[in-house]
Amino acid sequence: MTELKYEVQGSWQSAPGGVTLPRGFQASGVHCGIKKSRPDFALIVSEKQAQAAGVFTSNLVKAAPVLVTMEHLESGFARAIVANSGNANACTGEKGLKDAEMMAEGVASLLAICPQEVAVASTGVIGKALPMDKVSEGIRLAVSNLSPKGSGDAAQAILTTDRSTKEVGLTGSIGGRNVSIGGIAKGSGMIHPNMATMLAFITTDVAIAPIMLRKALVQSVNESFNMITVDGDTSTNDMAIVMANGLAANALIDEEGPDFDEFCRGLREVASSLAKMIVKDGEGATKFVEVRVQGASSVEDARCIARTVASSNLVKTAIFGADPNWGRILAAAGRAGVNFHPDLTDVYIGDVLVACSGKSGGFDEDCARKALAEKNIEITLNLNIGNEAASAWTCDLTYDYVKINASYTS
Amino acid sequence: MTELKYEVQGSWQSAPGGVTLPRGFQASGVHCGIKKSRPDFALIVSEKQAQAAGVFTSNLVKAAPVLVTMEHLESGFARAIVANSGNANACTGEKGLKDAEMMAEGVASLLAICPQEVAVASTGVIGKALPMDKVSEGIRLAVSNLSPKGSGDAAQAILTTDRSTKEVGLTGSIGGRNVSIGGIAKGSGMIHPNMATMLAFITTDVAIAPIMLRKALVQSVNESFNMITVDGDTSTNDMAIVMANGLAANALIDEEGPDFDEFCRGLREVASSLAKMIVKDGEGATKFVEVRVQGASSVEDARCIARTVASSNLVKTAIFGADPNWGRILAAAGRAGVNFHPDLTDVYIGDVLVACSGKSGGFDEDCARKALAEKNIEITLNLNIGNEAASAWTCDLTYDYVKINASYTS
Repeated sequence: MTELKYEVQGSWQSAPGGVTLPRGFQASGVHCGIKKSRPDFALIVSEKQAQAAGVFTSNLVKAAPVLVTMEHLESGFARAIVANSGNANACTGEKGLKDAEMMAEGVASLLAICPQEVAVASTGVIGKALPMDKVSEGIRLAVSNLSPKGSGDAAQAILTTDRSTKEVGLTGSIGGRNVSIGGIAKGSGMIHPNMATMLAFITTDVAIAPIMLRKALVQSVNESFNMITVDGDTSTNDMAIVMANGLAANALIDEEGPDFDEFCRGLREVASSLAKMIVKDGEGATKFVEVRVQGASSVEDARCIARTVASSNLVKTAIFGADPNWGRILAAAGRAGVNFHPDLTDVYIGDVLVACSGKSGGFDEDCARKALAEKNIEITLNLNIGNEAASAWTCDLTYDYVKINASYTS
Repeated sequence: MTELKYEVQGSWQSAPGGVTLPRGFQASGVHCGIKKSRPDFALIVSEKQAQAAGVFTSNLVKAAPVLVTMEHLESGFARAIVANSGNANACTGEKGLKDAEMMAEGVASLLAICPQEVAVASTGVIGKALPMDKVSEGIRLAVSNLSPKGSGDAAQAILTTDRSTKEVGLTGSIGGRNVSIGGIAKGSGMIHPNMATMLAFITTDVAIAPIMLRKALVQSVNESFNMITVDGDTSTNDMAIVMANGLAANALIDEEGPDFDEFCRGLREVASSLAKMIVKDGEGATKFVEVRVQGASSVEDARCIARTVASSNLVKTAIFGADPNWGRILAAAGRAGVNFHPDLTDVYIGDVLVACSGKSGGFDEDCARKALAEKNIEITLNLNIGNEAASAWTCDLTYDYVKINASYTS
């Protein structure tokens, strides 16, 4: 089987530091009392105005911070990202919008920047008003705690039911200059294609024009955050934001070409690393699953089938139970709304060919069970009708998923 | 709030007898060894050739019996329905098709009818060959056990992980003649709109032309089986079949009018009763949930939102935990792909207005929790933008759903 995973190509190498790895970024994460005891307020600031782009939830029900940030980023510039966890400020009406604006204004005032330069994000319970006294305290604390080593604290402060922080950093070379890209994210539940409940904040010191930055972000989101699913629900609050402050002083990337491609490779690697971390830390997850679709007529078809299989409750419970029920895999593919020939389709669990040309390959059940007992599982469908491929990532559906979600607000 | 439930209207009244309630139908359910010890083989026979219509899974991966029955019913006529449980005869290639044909031929030969007059259905594990020696024995036993009181046995023999049989009977009056409609079904897992894993066999002694029978079936399926969801997965084997043998001797229904409407009311009641039984008996279900959408611009919009909310894992786990997390309800509606105004939308849990104009109604949480602790739960969304309405039915997502599905083949 061909390898679908993107290897870190080009000049990119892993490095510590997260969103404060790139030059000129500081961050902080503090506790202001929105959550009982854990950090709940994060701030990321660029010392210089940065190009900025965002991708937002496709849900018709958009939380107030999403609406405010969409508007603020229309300019293509930003200086800061402020985020709270513990309260989503979603379904909160006019007051919610005012509160989100006040978060931006509070940060802007202390940093002596313009409120429109501040992106606002919230995650947590839907439908409750933000406690603005605590938010004010959060802003004060976050600004005074800003640090060039603050990425880890910020990564901590945006979590909800996540079990671990999600932080990535890469250094590389563009146009002969050392550059870097860093990111933090939160995920956990309500994770589904076309923006999960997911906040992802990415920073870079690369010099790039707003239109190219946006293009690179959309491409990388389509291959990363839009290819993961935990439970099929799309949240009201999702956003992925990238800020590029240009302090690496590379020649401005303002068109397609080798520099743009190199930046895209790095950005894609950061985004897909964060996306996979989100799935691995999915609510109740015990296993990480890559669903690869090969031999498709188009990338869109491959993506659609990969996502549908990755979304299937029946596939995900079977994986939890290490049950090589390949019929469920093929049946899920069959309801993706994509035209293919089940009779030509091969299905692999790990390296075991469990279905050949749409029927049982008379495979070794013990081998398949062993592959499903691993922590990392690969499911491959080869449609054998074309040359296009895509991957989606998911986790298993477990008792703990039910437990976590049966009593979230209480 | 207006009442969306369909009351049994017109002349229809509940009656025992299931598929053998209408004149001229016999049925049987036997054990032939496909399953270890429970009944696994069912037969329904009309003493006279009947008009017949079917609706089949929308999954691209269609099981062999689905393909065979689609072809057999093209004529618009049938005499018998034969079904086995324990093996889906899906993803079984050419041999599967031959086996499904042999099931029809075996029945036809013993009943001295034409194989094309036999509809074939299977449900159970995907991807394993039907044990044809056992099937042959099943055919022999089923034919010799045919009885005018055999509906209960047939209802038993089509079950898989179902906990209880699903059987309905109605008597009514059309054109001055006493008529009846009966049905049996199996459901349980892989239940989702546009045909669940679901077999539904409906019989009637009404005289009706094939084209009108088909029309009535499609309408009633759209309002019943296509509005239920257990886990979002569409099966390879679903079918709903109706046979009408005309023995009630009413004036043939061959056009729209009062007689057709009366028949549709009865058929819809049979189909929606069976559909609701399937949901109540959903895998691991502890609660039955009706999601009503009112005030929509179109019935299609209302259906789409109702189904999306009913499909949400997050809504279903919150209901399991009696957690009045209305934000999840509104968020699920928001990803239905339908245009509406979240800011105008009211959400009720039972009679409790939990969200008014898209934000918290400052409701009594204890009352909402109490409503969610019931066995039967009603969730209502009023979009306040039109006059159309629809309902979908689902169940909660529980530990037992995970348990049942983590090890189905083993």
